[in-house]
Amino acid sequence: MKEIQGGVCAPKGFLAGGIHCGIRKNRAKRDLALIVSRTRAAAAAVYTQNLVKGAPLAVTRANLEDGYAQAVVCNSGNANTCNADGIEIAEKMCRLVEEAAQIPAQDVIVASTGVIGQPLPLEPIAQGMKPLVAALEEDCLAAAEAIMTTDTREKVVAVEFELDGVTARLGGIAKGSGMIHPNMATMLVFLTTDAAISPAMLQKALSRDVEKSFNRISVDGDTSTNDMCSILANGLAGNPEICEEGPAFEAFAEALHHVTVKLCKMIARDGEGATKLLECRVTGARTQQAADLCSKAVICSSLVKAAMFGSDANWGRVLCAIGYAGAEVDVRKIDVSFRSAAGEIEVCKGGAGVSFSEEEAKKILLEESVEILVDLHDGDAYSFAWGCDLTYDYVRINGDYRT
Amino acid sequence: MKEIQGGVCAPKGFLAGGIHCGIRKNRAKRDLALIVSRTRAAAAAVYTQNLVKGAPLAVTRANLEDGYAQAVVCNSGNANTCNADGIEIAEKMCRLVEEAAQIPAQDVIVASTGVIGQPLPLEPIAQGMKPLVAALEEDCLAAAEAIMTTDTREKVVAVEFELDGVTARLGGIAKGSGMIHPNMATMLVFLTTDAAISPAMLQKALSRDVEKSFNRISVDGDTSTNDMCSILANGLAGNPEICEEGPAFEAFAEALHHVTVKLCKMIARDGEGATKLLECRVTGARTQQAADLCSKAVICSSLVKAAMFGSDANWGRVLCAIGYAGAEVDVRKIDVSFRSAAGEIEVCKGGAGVSFSEEEAKKILLEESVEILVDLHDGDAYSFAWGCDLTYDYVRINGDYRT
Repeated sequence: MKEIQGGVCAPKGFLAGGIHCGIRKNRAKRDLALIVSRTRAAAAAVYTQNLVKGAPLAVTRANLEDGYAQAVVCNSGNANTCNADGIEIAEKMCRLVEEAAQIPAQDVIVASTGVIGQPLPLEPIAQGMKPLVAALEEDCLAAAEAIMTTDTREKVVAVEFELDGVTARLGGIAKGSGMIHPNMATMLVFLTTDAAISPAMLQKALSRDVEKSFNRISVDGDTSTNDMCSILANGLAGNPEICEEGPAFEAFAEALHHVTVKLCKMIARDGEGATKLLECRVTGARTQQAADLCSKAVICSSLVKAAMFGSDANWGRVLCAIGYAGAEVDVRKIDVSFRSAAGEIEVCKGGAGVSFSEEEAKKILLEESVEILVDLHDGDAYSFAWGCDLTYDYVRINGDYRT
Repeated sequence: MKEIQGGVCAPKGFLAGGIHCGIRKNRAKRDLALIVSRTRAAAAAVYTQNLVKGAPLAVTRANLEDGYAQAVVCNSGNANTCNADGIEIAEKMCRLVEEAAQIPAQDVIVASTGVIGQPLPLEPIAQGMKPLVAALEEDCLAAAEAIMTTDTREKVVAVEFELDGVTARLGGIAKGSGMIHPNMATMLVFLTTDAAISPAMLQKALSRDVEKSFNRISVDGDTSTNDMCSILANGLAGNPEICEEGPAFEAFAEALHHVTVKLCKMIARDGEGATKLLECRVTGARTQQAADLCSKAVICSSLVKAAMFGSDANWGRVLCAIGYAGAEVDVRKIDVSFRSAAGEIEVCKGGAGVSFSEEEAKKILLEESVEILVDLHDGDAYSFAWGCDLTYDYVRINGDYRT
């Protein structure tokens, strides 16, 4: 397996585009994206677990009931959530794709992201759809940009891998910067592949994957109403269709995981206002649940996040977070270290502080990517989670998001 | 019942004091507090539910096993938590009180607050104890100041109430600004009363009270390792000892609740970096648990908190928080309003936005105390929670707490 360029357009038969249609006031920001497959594709998706769900998710869920789809349409600038006419608007977005691109409305995955509770005007989308279809190309940067909200950079990944002697590709684009928290399906992630795989196996691969990828990110503890991760598999790579578990399924799952983990790190690193990517790795847990709870509690702690912003080796906050994680742990056995490109330093052993060089710790924590290593010395279970630091800019961005 | 001055010194027979002994580097900040009762008092306490517990809590728990105590000693600047010799140091603090004030060490409630994981030197406390005892007075402001960490103001309350025809008093001081979250006993709160009440009934009153007071606050979602709320009842008011439930117990509970609620609001309002107090009131919930979960989720949401900092009526974030609260709610029935001294405005009805004046909403949200009113229209259960906004100063304070 190797990484390649092209994102969702890397697999055979996929085109993408992104334009400014007028949902966002800023004309410099694209706000409508489209991804299409040359042929109908097996499709799967996972959705937010928030009870308040964006209207597009209900429409997408209905459209994917038969396991197939051919296009993804997504706007930014408005979440189309908590609106009385939300479902109707989302369905009309699918019909606009049908009219402009001759793809049946029920084969369209629809998504929206932005402010909650403000009516989404159909007008700009109706006017923008034809130019958008005309702008479809083999480069997905415009689409990746069009789904961004407070994101500061596009999130694009693709890999090439072998499948029963055939070369297949899998790529993705993602958005997500605020309102991001592990207890969910995920933020907006659109994946494509030219591998041939049945809808059931595609769903299985995706559902299994998000547990170890997108469900392990937190930017701010807020689980969004519009999170969705979808994948289209058009089969143009020409491999025998994957219809059961086995070596081919595992090869596909491995490629999928490579792409999703990379997107996870991009999303966490680009968390609202973030200056650095944090990864908490918990080893030696008594149970898988304990490992999961501890890694997520550390990555979600406002106090840990603020300390990391200040590059302050305040490990007591890591212990505090583990203590309230809700997991069974023996606090007298916990070791904590910090690690980055600048080195590794142990700061806590057996639940108590060890003397360490503050200067060296600072150097390690000043890096752009920092690992918080926790060993519970209480068993064999292992887990991890990704997050980011808490900064002035998070407050600035969210103190006045709507205006 | 009426509010009076004096805090923990308002009840008969209590003295308090606070000095700078040298645990904190800043000589202008007091760091050691003492509260003593003229006579041995019934005593009760509740403690943090964090698995990582400060050493003083274990010592206090042991000292309160017989239901009586006579003094409270508390230092700020160091939490005496995650230290190998923590228990020993906490026990020595009690013995220093015994030597200086002739109160048996096992009748001392001991507490510490500050940085986790740095050894607490006994030396400054040993040298400061005699001057501290000499400084005991009928004014508790110095003590209230000496227990502060990042707090910006002292938190002092007292009430006078009738008990079986006798006038009794109950007062308290508290500290708490960061690392504050509902799933706990509470932050540091010291209460005194001259009412006569048995240790068992005192514990019952306190445990019942915190469920509707301190356990409903959140500043940052981090449950501290050193939270504790204790109460001393020396009986000097002269009422017949309260030994069972009934009118006298209820009168006592009412006075207690008045003081604790007031301290709750002071703590939330003085949350690290906060510019305003938030109160979320949830009505019409199907179950008590649903009401509790929803009010806490709203008050804990970083996005809601940041929007309140910006006085932005972003009610979609309130719905989003309710959606992931883990409670059974029908999202199509939810109404949301904002209320303050400047008025009340409805922003969401039946789960969807209503048109409202942004200008008027801004005026309401600019106040120092804002209520977020949620009606779930799904039953009769009611709950509430207090919190504060998320500001630049929260990040500043916690980005470099230790230096």
